[in-house]
Amino acid sequence: VVTVRKPPITLSSQDLDRIEALLAALPSSALAGKAELQAELDRAEVLAPEEMPASVVTMNSTVKFSIVETGKEFCLTLVYPRDMDGSADRISIFAPVGSALPGLSIGDELAWPGPGGKAMTVRVTEIVYQPERAGELHRSAPPRWSQRPIAAQACRHYRRRRCCGVWVKRAPPTPQTPFSAAYGKQARVV
Amino acid sequence: VVTVRKPPITLSSQDLDRIEALLAALPSSALAGKAELQAELDRAEVLAPEEMPASVVTMNSTVKFSIVETGKEFCLTLVYPRDMDGSADRISIFAPVGSALPGLSIGDELAWPGPGGKAMTVRVTEIVYQPERAGELHRSAPPRWSQRPIAAQACRHYRRRRCCGVWVKRAPPTPQTPFSAAYGKQARVV
Repeated sequence: VVTVRKPPITLSSQDLDRIEALLAALPSSALAGKAELQAELDRAEVLAPEEMPASVVTMNSTVKFSIVETGKEFCLTLVYPRDMDGSADRISIFAPVGSALPGLSIGDELAWPGPGGKAMTVRVTEIVYQPERAGELHRSAPPRWSQRPIAAQACRHYRRRRCCGVWVKRAPPTPQTPFSAAYGKQARVV
Repeated sequence: VVTVRKPPITLSSQDLDRIEALLAALPSSALAGKAELQAELDRAEVLAPEEMPASVVTMNSTVKFSIVETGKEFCLTLVYPRDMDGSADRISIFAPVGSALPGLSIGDELAWPGPGGKAMTVRVTEIVYQPERAGELHRSAPPRWSQRPIAAQACRHYRRRRCCGVWVKRAPPTPQTPFSAAYGKQARVV
């Protein structure tokens, strides 16, 4: 079951600019479907980062998938090529399957070949982390635990849950704690 | 069109050992179809590296694909996770699609989602480089241009053609040139 997508896809203006700049430098022999990706960018609906729906996959989003045939779950974080580091839970925007992810929504399904060449149907079940939703409107790389301020790691107002390699917010900060004001952009709410 | 594979797949004993060792350390939530990959390894036909058919995808092989719908060609080199470097022409054995590649043969087809989520049918058209075929029976990483000896770069007996990021041999060495004997394992025939 391959999703029949509602054309056009939705992209943030920031993601679009960055992807197009990288794409221009890439030889077509190095990318499966470079022309098709360019065509998708050309016809995308473009929104400001702060206007992006929270249920849509954007760059540096961490997406939880389930394999329809087995019910097994796994996560992938969609990154720019420079942020690929060999970990199995990151996928490049220019890799097979990766180029299909921007603009996908919860519930969308994709088919891709699993081990042995057998087709797997894979459903988007959750956007575990989306930079725009987290207020990270200018982030160009996925967050790492080590980038978080020590104070945030200990803050009792954040009940943290490690899921798919990223720390996600479970409870909003109480109003009397000017946490983000104290740390500004550095104090990511995770 | 998803290939109905002839079970079991064919793997070299060296690739099998390395993949299994890496797989054991990987959490299942980080890999799409970890159990399925393990199952494929368990039932694979295992051959010594020097016995591998030249038309089969092995680790560090560079594979040329064509998109059936458009006729466009591109190449991917199947690597271990540590050899991922952000270039779009490498794919990890633990990445989507990558885990489907070992054991594929020329003519095999796979379906995977391209930009915008549209299904692409992708056919293996050539094994541009296969370590076992090149006599690189113990290589654990794909070759780089900079790893080649200077003498090999200038050797008139090798007409080089840069294809898909690797240099491939166009003509066999003449018998009177003891090229590999002079350089031993270092003198990769490319």
